[in-house]
Amino acid sequence: MATYDNLTLHTDKYQINMMYAHWIHGTTDNKAVFEVFFRKLPFGNGYAVFAGLQRIVEYVRSLSFNEEVIEYLREQEEDYAPAFLEKLQSFRFTGNLCSVEEGTIVFPNEPLIRVEASVFEAQLLETAILNFMNFQTLIATKASRIRQVAPKDILMEFGTRRAQEADAAIWGARAAYIAGFDSTSNMRAGMLFGIPTKGTHAHAWVQDHDSEEEAFFRYAAALPNQVTLLVDTYDTLKSGVPHAIKVAKAMEAQGKRMSGIRLDSGDLAYLSKTARAMLDEAGLPYVKIVASNDLDENIIFNLKAQDCQIDSWGVGTQLITAADQPALGGVYKLVAREKDGEYVPVIKISGNPEKVTTPGLKEVYRLMNRRNGMAEADYIVLSGDTEALEGRKLKLFDKLHPYLYKYVEDYEAVPLLKPIFIGGEQVYELPELDQIRAYHAKQLKMFWPEYLRKLNPAAYLVDLSPQAWQLKMDLIHANKM
Amino acid sequence: MATYDNLTLHTDKYQINMMYAHWIHGTTDNKAVFEVFFRKLPFGNGYAVFAGLQRIVEYVRSLSFNEEVIEYLREQEEDYAPAFLEKLQSFRFTGNLCSVEEGTIVFPNEPLIRVEASVFEAQLLETAILNFMNFQTLIATKASRIRQVAPKDILMEFGTRRAQEADAAIWGARAAYIAGFDSTSNMRAGMLFGIPTKGTHAHAWVQDHDSEEEAFFRYAAALPNQVTLLVDTYDTLKSGVPHAIKVAKAMEAQGKRMSGIRLDSGDLAYLSKTARAMLDEAGLPYVKIVASNDLDENIIFNLKAQDCQIDSWGVGTQLITAADQPALGGVYKLVAREKDGEYVPVIKISGNPEKVTTPGLKEVYRLMNRRNGMAEADYIVLSGDTEALEGRKLKLFDKLHPYLYKYVEDYEAVPLLKPIFIGGEQVYELPELDQIRAYHAKQLKMFWPEYLRKLNPAAYLVDLSPQAWQLKMDLIHANKM
Repeated sequence: MATYDNLTLHTDKYQINMMYAHWIHGTTDNKAVFEVFFRKLPFGNGYAVFAGLQRIVEYVRSLSFNEEVIEYLREQEEDYAPAFLEKLQSFRFTGNLCSVEEGTIVFPNEPLIRVEASVFEAQLLETAILNFMNFQTLIATKASRIRQVAPKDILMEFGTRRAQEADAAIWGARAAYIAGFDSTSNMRAGMLFGIPTKGTHAHAWVQDHDSEEEAFFRYAAALPNQVTLLVDTYDTLKSGVPHAIKVAKAMEAQGKRMSGIRLDSGDLAYLSKTARAMLDEAGLPYVKIVASNDLDENIIFNLKAQDCQIDSWGVGTQLITAADQPALGGVYKLVAREKDGEYVPVIKISGNPEKVTTPGLKEVYRLMNRRNGMAEADYIVLSGDTEALEGRKLKLFDKLHPYLYKYVEDYEAVPLLKPIFIGGEQVYELPELDQIRAYHAKQLKMFWPEYLRKLNPAAYLVDLSPQAWQLKMDLIHANKM
Repeated sequence: MATYDNLTLHTDKYQINMMYAHWIHGTTDNKAVFEVFFRKLPFGNGYAVFAGLQRIVEYVRSLSFNEEVIEYLREQEEDYAPAFLEKLQSFRFTGNLCSVEEGTIVFPNEPLIRVEASVFEAQLLETAILNFMNFQTLIATKASRIRQVAPKDILMEFGTRRAQEADAAIWGARAAYIAGFDSTSNMRAGMLFGIPTKGTHAHAWVQDHDSEEEAFFRYAAALPNQVTLLVDTYDTLKSGVPHAIKVAKAMEAQGKRMSGIRLDSGDLAYLSKTARAMLDEAGLPYVKIVASNDLDENIIFNLKAQDCQIDSWGVGTQLITAADQPALGGVYKLVAREKDGEYVPVIKISGNPEKVTTPGLKEVYRLMNRRNGMAEADYIVLSGDTEALEGRKLKLFDKLHPYLYKYVEDYEAVPLLKPIFIGGEQVYELPELDQIRAYHAKQLKMFWPEYLRKLNPAAYLVDLSPQAWQLKMDLIHANKM
């Protein structure tokens, strides 16, 4: 099989076809500007958590049409001229790429990544950038929702067996960690990214012994520092918990402490409360209760409303597949093209108003209120527009209802897009994962809780500058049939 | 970063913990038998399409706790004794693995994979096997549903940008191809697996020219053998289709034929019928119509009921994420353990009746009616039970309603589980992808259409032998609290 880890062809065929068509017509070096954004927040959430940048940076750096790739294209694609394949052999990314940082709170219709490069290079990158950003941002957002309903509990990512293949498991674990999960069960994710790993034991461990009691005692003897016993193989309250208590008492006699028990089926509210009472009565208030079994933010929220006695949550399928909305619809749209050495803004019209693109090379600023340090709105301007940076008073208005507006002043305009590659050189140092996680936690503090709540969040304002809005209107009219 | 392509730690931490606990207690070499099955069909479908075996075989073959992995475990996991890590260094799979072949039609609660190995080895494999099998079987099943509603059309997998990371894109493309899709847009999937690749061009190509007409002519000039023009950048019927017709006529003048036009937004029923009429009127009946835009089997089914004029479907998000049910709940359950040199069947009890496992080492036979060549039922027996193989008359009965039964005779019992590894040696030659695809197509012909239909399919019979049923009952009672 061909080399698995070369991602250069991790792209749609039409990208290569368009690259070829540009090559045929001698337009490969024309500059193009693409912006990545999504149109709608997932899960009815009020915000998304941007993730995927590390993967994108590594991908861009590793692009290489090596011999094997070229050979495949030569054999399979008779339409491509040999000189085109030769040009691919020396392909590398020489353009500019700006991006929001991982862990940043982001909103619909604002540029999250901007690629400014020869159209030849920019086109190749589309598919992989979207693939990475869409998935990782989706999972980070889902994880953030789960974190919101259990702000002080331990959250463990347990989803690998139900993840959509191997990459989803590990990059999903990483995204969850960024958004506040504490650990993953996936050891490879632990090794590759430095995420703390956690695990208990399976039903098989219990089944594989003559009795549950024997199984528990043996497990505790082997790993005395991480004894969390799964108590539902036969009968949680009649068998599992009493046996776990026996083990905990025996451990106490040796000066050790059992970490916890795990509930993996049944009525988690009732079982956790009863198990808690049994543990407490046995003088084991320090033994924690871990729960798993198809959990998501709504189930956890409801269990907590029932005063469940669960300290730690193992979340699998619902998180790692973002089961209630398994795709984020991020897109990569051309916003400007080079013509006669200058950028010309371009638009894509659509019967669906929300699908009309916003033309022109843009910047996005987060307007931070200087009095209280809170985010007031995001403000999108055409590149070169420095009004916000200068702190001028801005009128933010609702584009659908222009009589609704507000003024902002006394703010700091923080640019969200950071330079990552300039002229093909990486100018951004990828932060450590724990830095990203801390940055995300800080980000959350900059938003009023009304924007962050799980159900019916308030809509945070993302506004176009008057100039950007006018340009869009002008191009719509210019393209009117 | 550590080596990305070593999947040895693509497992849950609790597997390694259990391996360690076995090692501590000297029980690593005890044999264990695990079976993989799922409990419920996805999407309300009447069957699933098994996939994932190639990935599993390659994974098992490549297992290696190399220096990097060992170093990670040594640094991160202080609980593991050095001698345990040394044992891992020489780890390889030396057991037996049987599996259903890729492309096979399968049903709930029948063993799809059986691992018979030292518990030390068998435990490690669980997570990755489930990860691969669950996802690939899910996508193959989804693709098969889509194929059912468009039996003669061209089906193209277009989902990479919305797939859940890179592996999902390519293994999902492969699963879709097995189940009857004709191509993928992902070039890497094309290179790695030999799937035909197809693509058109993006809106960016049109936006990147002074006019749509110029864009179309240039694209056709570059790739005259695969001209499918995307006609909805500005206005499908007023601009896109007329320009495409102009190009097609110009191509005709040069003795060439345009392949098609692509609709990617708007009312696909109306637009395709109108575009078809315009093309026909222009004398271009051979120009095909391709559609895309968040399609799934229900939308395609409804469009066809409206007599849409679409020849070819590009299916993305809904297929590659299996959006209406993004996880298959396949599990890996211990069914027998070695004790004093013999296998002892084991069970897992649960408050949910459907979660009680079926104990014992089992075989599954497909009973093929000799008169009509159709599949009659699947029949699960304890290993060594040869009644079915001998063609004896069998009584199949409904376990919940034992008064419902039927007899089968004059059948051939075809074993579904094939040996893949024996004593760690691979004894199964992985078929070519096109063979798997053809095998799947043949499989479908062995089932009455009532089992295959998309909505409210008839339930195909999967039956336990009386002995297997009795063993399960006995163990339930023996474990009764």
